[in-house]
Amino acid sequence: MKTLIKNVVILSLTGETSPINGHRFGEKFGDILIEGDTIQKLGHAITDDVDKVIEGRGMLAMPGLINAHQHTPMSLLKGFSDDLKLMDWLDQKMLPAEARMTPEDIFWGAKLSMAEMIKSGTTAFADMYIHMNEIASAVVEVGMRASLARGMVFLQDDGGKRLTEALELVERWNGKAGGTISTMLGPHAPYTCPPEPLKEIIKIAEEMNLPIHIHLAETKEEVIKIRDKYNQTPTEYLYQAGLFEKSHVLLAHSVHVNRRDIGLLKGMRGGVSHNPVSNLKLGCGIAPVSEMMNQGIGVGIGTDGSGSATTIDMFEEIKAAAWLQKLDYGDPTVLPASQVLRMATIGSAKLLKIDHQVGTLEVGKKADIILIDMNKPHLQPVHHIESLLAYSVNGADVDTTIVNGKVLMQNRKLVTIDEEELLKQVSTRAKRIVEGI
Amino acid sequence: MKTLIKNVVILSLTGETSPINGHRFGEKFGDILIEGDTIQKLGHAITDDVDKVIEGRGMLAMPGLINAHQHTPMSLLKGFSDDLKLMDWLDQKMLPAEARMTPEDIFWGAKLSMAEMIKSGTTAFADMYIHMNEIASAVVEVGMRASLARGMVFLQDDGGKRLTEALELVERWNGKAGGTISTMLGPHAPYTCPPEPLKEIIKIAEEMNLPIHIHLAETKEEVIKIRDKYNQTPTEYLYQAGLFEKSHVLLAHSVHVNRRDIGLLKGMRGGVSHNPVSNLKLGCGIAPVSEMMNQGIGVGIGTDGSGSATTIDMFEEIKAAAWLQKLDYGDPTVLPASQVLRMATIGSAKLLKIDHQVGTLEVGKKADIILIDMNKPHLQPVHHIESLLAYSVNGADVDTTIVNGKVLMQNRKLVTIDEEELLKQVSTRAKRIVEGI
Repeated sequence: MKTLIKNVVILSLTGETSPINGHRFGEKFGDILIEGDTIQKLGHAITDDVDKVIEGRGMLAMPGLINAHQHTPMSLLKGFSDDLKLMDWLDQKMLPAEARMTPEDIFWGAKLSMAEMIKSGTTAFADMYIHMNEIASAVVEVGMRASLARGMVFLQDDGGKRLTEALELVERWNGKAGGTISTMLGPHAPYTCPPEPLKEIIKIAEEMNLPIHIHLAETKEEVIKIRDKYNQTPTEYLYQAGLFEKSHVLLAHSVHVNRRDIGLLKGMRGGVSHNPVSNLKLGCGIAPVSEMMNQGIGVGIGTDGSGSATTIDMFEEIKAAAWLQKLDYGDPTVLPASQVLRMATIGSAKLLKIDHQVGTLEVGKKADIILIDMNKPHLQPVHHIESLLAYSVNGADVDTTIVNGKVLMQNRKLVTIDEEELLKQVSTRAKRIVEGI
Repeated sequence: MKTLIKNVVILSLTGETSPINGHRFGEKFGDILIEGDTIQKLGHAITDDVDKVIEGRGMLAMPGLINAHQHTPMSLLKGFSDDLKLMDWLDQKMLPAEARMTPEDIFWGAKLSMAEMIKSGTTAFADMYIHMNEIASAVVEVGMRASLARGMVFLQDDGGKRLTEALELVERWNGKAGGTISTMLGPHAPYTCPPEPLKEIIKIAEEMNLPIHIHLAETKEEVIKIRDKYNQTPTEYLYQAGLFEKSHVLLAHSVHVNRRDIGLLKGMRGGVSHNPVSNLKLGCGIAPVSEMMNQGIGVGIGTDGSGSATTIDMFEEIKAAAWLQKLDYGDPTVLPASQVLRMATIGSAKLLKIDHQVGTLEVGKKADIILIDMNKPHLQPVHHIESLLAYSVNGADVDTTIVNGKVLMQNRKLVTIDEEELLKQVSTRAKRIVEGI
């Protein structure tokens, strides 16, 4: 199967402005040839015998956005418990509602998040939740790229059920669906993982060469909790457990990390998923991501679940990430457009350990590509394309989403998801889940 | 001319959830009857002999958003100078580019901003700029509601030209275009208006019963400047000039106001336009708008010009406003969805002194209405409609925009603007304006 995308401006996000030098939008054009799941050619007026041609005039092609921290099934609870204190949000709303979610609900909730992601230009995501088989099945059906982890909370003895499920997920799904699914181990957070099980998981991860996905220092309350219990910061706690010694680690949030903590993270494999919208909406604070990047720590961008963030449009996160660093430093030059765009693409790809496959538009990489329709009042005139992408584009400007060479949306129409059926399913299920809560 | 909007959920934003009690989205429906420029009826299954029927099934009707602080022609410079220090932004980029803008450029730039606003659900705006005749002509052609002020910077003697133009604007345009245009006086800011001309304008405003639109305390630098010059805060400076004694005042920004300043603003007529995206992008800080509202000061929401904010989508401002207060207080319950939605509608209407006409959906008010298409993955399921509107809707979800009873956009197609011609015009003009800068 060969697909040719014609007449687009190509923003490779490799670090240069464009693989075709000197381009400014609307002045010159390029083509992208996809063969199977791979980018075969980037160039001028490519001619080849192809199966499908996508006319891209007026559009911009860039790498698909990569959402580095998600809990996809929470889409069923979006807006259900906004404007509440974090603990009320969790105890009174989220936990009782989640307890009512069946495996089938999980499947549809995950699919709803995937529909939202595809429609706003996200091509890959890292997910941590329960009932991961259902999520994996939805991933296969929909055709996105995903890194899946069974979330493990060790507050009660469950006779090893969590860990068994986590390992079954790895066994069954790692590398499957044409290599689009990868897996991680998901110890939930410092405050839900005592030293013993945490160390055990770290050991297993090292032995099996599996990355670890874990929350870190999302709230001040977490910092106090861990200090009271261990006389350490959450980061010190994870450091002492040996988390950063050998494993590739995806840290979600990392809002409350001090200078010493950042010193401990220096040199780690993996890095931090910055989730600014969720952090803002829950009043958590501003993660010091510029400082972390200055220290060489990898930073990508995620949305968190829509239970907290409500929107999971990565273009919102891109804006929020850039805005927050400028605010924090009182300096508009901090975290410029080109840098924040790279965070949301190749930056996140590194966290998911898929940067050899995706995150930039380069020959030989997998074809995870989005096309953005620039022919709109809020995206014209074009003085500086990265500025428009970072500060003005929103998810609805994405016209076409391609994952692993396969078109998942074109002209804003989902290809692998029946949207009408999806909305019917989630409406009925959501009503049932929250009834009386 | 009678128009009937059928089968929509009606969010009146009068303070109750809906004028039709107990509604939750998708469960019950209502109709809106517009006669001429006015909302004639809100109710169930209205039957009337009408000229136009808008089928609204799956949509939500709410008051149009009101952008309380704009410099519309700056749309020609969007993205031209992002990620720069404020003074570099101004001196090296904005001022040289603005100096090249012809009256015709102003007309097209204003029209571009209006296209963006209509397409993202804004029905009215307050504008402060130069060449206001051109902006007013564009307003009439496009059909939006606007409050216009000729910006006046008193750094050089101009023989009274500014003020003459300001008064000509009032004379020529106040109350025109079926009452959709109103005018204000626009002394630019404390640091550009010495006491003498400022006091003269305040006096004229009182005599002519004209509101005043002015910037206040956008940056720390301004605070330092005014302290060095007058040994006062910018707010004290305006207070002492007598600004808050009789006039209705629209204060833009008000980021750097201390507790004493807020005390001085207490009881003022008018209030503050909060412009969170511009404040974030320029690294200015967080305006204490929750505190101001607690003190009874009116607060609305604006975008500032797209030269600084890039996007002028008011739904972005709504999100950013709510996020920032939650961040500032470290408390997710601060500035909940329903309150921030009212800020962007009736709150802004009060600042523009048009709250007797618009800002809520009520019988007898002017028909400034937007319809939002809720039948989308990111807006389903519906647990809490205000949450989705505040935290998940973006401008592209607006299907229909009606101003003063006239449809300006339907099914996302602009009615009074030729979009293709507009984009051609602005592209050419923008290129010419910035060439070599």
